Amino acid sequence: MTPSVGTVQTRYFTWDHPFTLGSEAVLPRITLAYETYGALNSRRDNAVLVCHALSGDAHAAGYHQGEDRPGWWDVMIGPGRAFDTGRYFVICSNVLGGCKGSTGPGSVDPSTGRPYGLRFPVVTIGDMVNAQKLLVDSLGISRVQCVAGGSMGGMQALQWAVSYPEMVASCIPIAATSRHSALQIALDEVGRQAIMADPRWKGGDYSGEVPAAGLAVARMIGHITYMSDRSMERKFGRALKKRELGYDFTQEFEVEGYLRYRGDSFIQRFDANSYLYITKAMDYFDLPGRGRLCEAFGHLRDLRFLVIAFSSDWLYPPYQSKEIVRALKRNGLNVTYCEISSDYGHDAFLVESGEQSRLISGFLKTVAGRRERVSHA
Amino acid sequence: MTPSVGTVQTRYFTWDHPFTLGSEAVLPRITLAYETYGALNSRRDNAVLVCHALSGDAHAAGYHQGEDRPGWWDVMIGPGRAFDTGRYFVICSNVLGGCKGSTGPGSVDPSTGRPYGLRFPVVTIGDMVNAQKLLVDSLGISRVQCVAGGSMGGMQALQWAVSYPEMVASCIPIAATSRHSALQIALDEVGRQAIMADPRWKGGDYSGEVPAAGLAVARMIGHITYMSDRSMERKFGRALKKRELGYDFTQEFEVEGYLRYRGDSFIQRFDANSYLYITKAMDYFDLPGRGRLCEAFGHLRDLRFLVIAFSSDWLYPPYQSKEIVRALKRNGLNVTYCEISSDYGHDAFLVESGEQSRLISGFLKTVAGRRERVSHA
Repeated sequence: MTPSVGTVQTRYFTWDHPFTLGSEAVLPRITLAYETYGALNSRRDNAVLVCHALSGDAHAAGYHQGEDRPGWWDVMIGPGRAFDTGRYFVICSNVLGGCKGSTGPGSVDPSTGRPYGLRFPVVTIGDMVNAQKLLVDSLGISRVQCVAGGSMGGMQALQWAVSYPEMVASCIPIAATSRHSALQIALDEVGRQAIMADPRWKGGDYSGEVPAAGLAVARMIGHITYMSDRSMERKFGRALKKRELGYDFTQEFEVEGYLRYRGDSFIQRFDANSYLYITKAMDYFDLPGRGRLCEAFGHLRDLRFLVIAFSSDWLYPPYQSKEIVRALKRNGLNVTYCEISSDYGHDAFLVESGEQSRLISGFLKTVAGRRERVSHA
Repeated sequence: MTPSVGTVQTRYFTWDHPFTLGSEAVLPRITLAYETYGALNSRRDNAVLVCHALSGDAHAAGYHQGEDRPGWWDVMIGPGRAFDTGRYFVICSNVLGGCKGSTGPGSVDPSTGRPYGLRFPVVTIGDMVNAQKLLVDSLGISRVQCVAGGSMGGMQALQWAVSYPEMVASCIPIAATSRHSALQIALDEVGRQAIMADPRWKGGDYSGEVPAAGLAVARMIGHITYMSDRSMERKFGRALKKRELGYDFTQEFEVEGYLRYRGDSFIQRFDANSYLYITKAMDYFDLPGRGRLCEAFGHLRDLRFLVIAFSSDWLYPPYQSKEIVRALKRNGLNVTYCEISSDYGHDAFLVESGEQSRLISGFLKTVAGRRERVSHA
């Protein structure tokens, strides 16, 4: 593998002015945690914005001092990697509503001096993107080469294209959708119910004791939906943790142990209220709204798209990506679609680095080549 | 629609002797709740045993006095229906471990005078079938025309064929599997974790206040897996309960309201500990064990099978039914397989009465015809 971007640090951008949300609620100020990899060139036109999924954060690549676990998309970001930091200035920020340094329900409400909790206003994918836009502005970048992301990151990428088309040369929505379906809403809602059913949640006003049990159950549900029947069968099958069936309710099957481990490790690093807000933002995501999807893209010109889906992804199935592709094509836009054959389910966007990398690096070169031809003309 | 079986009553069969389980644990006595529809003929050879799924019970058809909701498979059982009570004597019993009249974790442990709770021994599908066999014996029936059921009912039907082949003329496993997969175990385990995470569960020793919130979450997860992406989209889509998005965490989408309703109504009628035991029994279900599935069927002779799966069932997908069919055919058994095209997901076995009925009634007639030819010879 090509080298990593090495040691990185999270930085913070604060917009110290009122920030109005889609709901018309106003946050008095907002902070976004973000990281950058690679160097911004002198023309300031080599930026790529990478957007994270539900449980992600600003730490997309490289290593934090003293840690041995790299950022969540390290396989894709670095010198010579898909998002080649030898060419591009890669930016990733924690979403508004998050719990990894950006303003969210765990932040202190300046009007009360206490954490917002459920008094934090509901945010949308549009709000997340509007906040990121202020960050990009603050870096002196008027147009990015690309906005890319998987899952909720792909929804943000699409929202960027729709909200700020003049600021985006290309867009890579991966394993995403243009609107959350009933199934996607249902799965999110069960996770929220699991959190809210935990008496330690206390209407969102927990402190000290957190609703860990509820959040762990929510995460377990999530993890099941990120895998596929086949990947789970291959990874676990009916393998036992013990030698024999114990005829009791302790962890017996490997898959049970895995889920509990995933649940338990998640509660160390994630805030239950942020889980509520971020899943809600996804459920609200609905680009076509009361119209048709092709109308949502009707004002786009000259924007190039690479849409990627994975064959075994049943949470954001390929047909949802194809709907996006059809609507873009109906507007005469330049779209490449690829359904990557993979058994990894929705998680594939995080782990299938081979074909995904080749597709993305090739696509970015054609976008960059076009930019150079335009700037030389 | 043809007429119903009318008003029915649940009866109780008690085996007042020690009952040894697969785990070698012994229950001092067991009771099974059961219902019957139609009349047993003088040769006592027209019985059909119907087995229920996770949340089902003995009340498969007709109406209980004063109630207007029929039994869970009423569309399939009655005069002129698939299981034609004009021809067959249909029996359905609540499973061992259940909470609808059969001995289960909510029953009183005679050695302590208190409910078993988690001191109830883990039961298997094999144990459920062994208990049903005692019931069938008690009715003076030495051989049933058919054992049929969907989901866990299908697993019981297969177990009947394997455990008591001489007592079964035919078998109809519907939307079932020969062994629980990693995905099926994972989904069950998350439901169990949701229950056990509820502080009201108290290690299974609840009384008065029950772990309703945890059980409701488990049921919501279940309900999602019983539907399909498409059926949820058609039934709910993104329809709102209110006129506009509320930007809050109350029930907003129809699908959210539906899930909460399903969760809330389930806790009125089901016991959380039974949910743990019955899901565990399914997870333990593994006909091939350490061998191959065809070996598990190696001792079967003359038994006819109708195996049914539904195209959109992702919880018990058709490939799992096809594995059963292949293993049966490898043993030279007479098998009919049908994958019914349906959008209803796993729930289809409860609601797709049309094609399912035609298949089953046709199949039962050929089985009965064979019986008559044999008995006339």
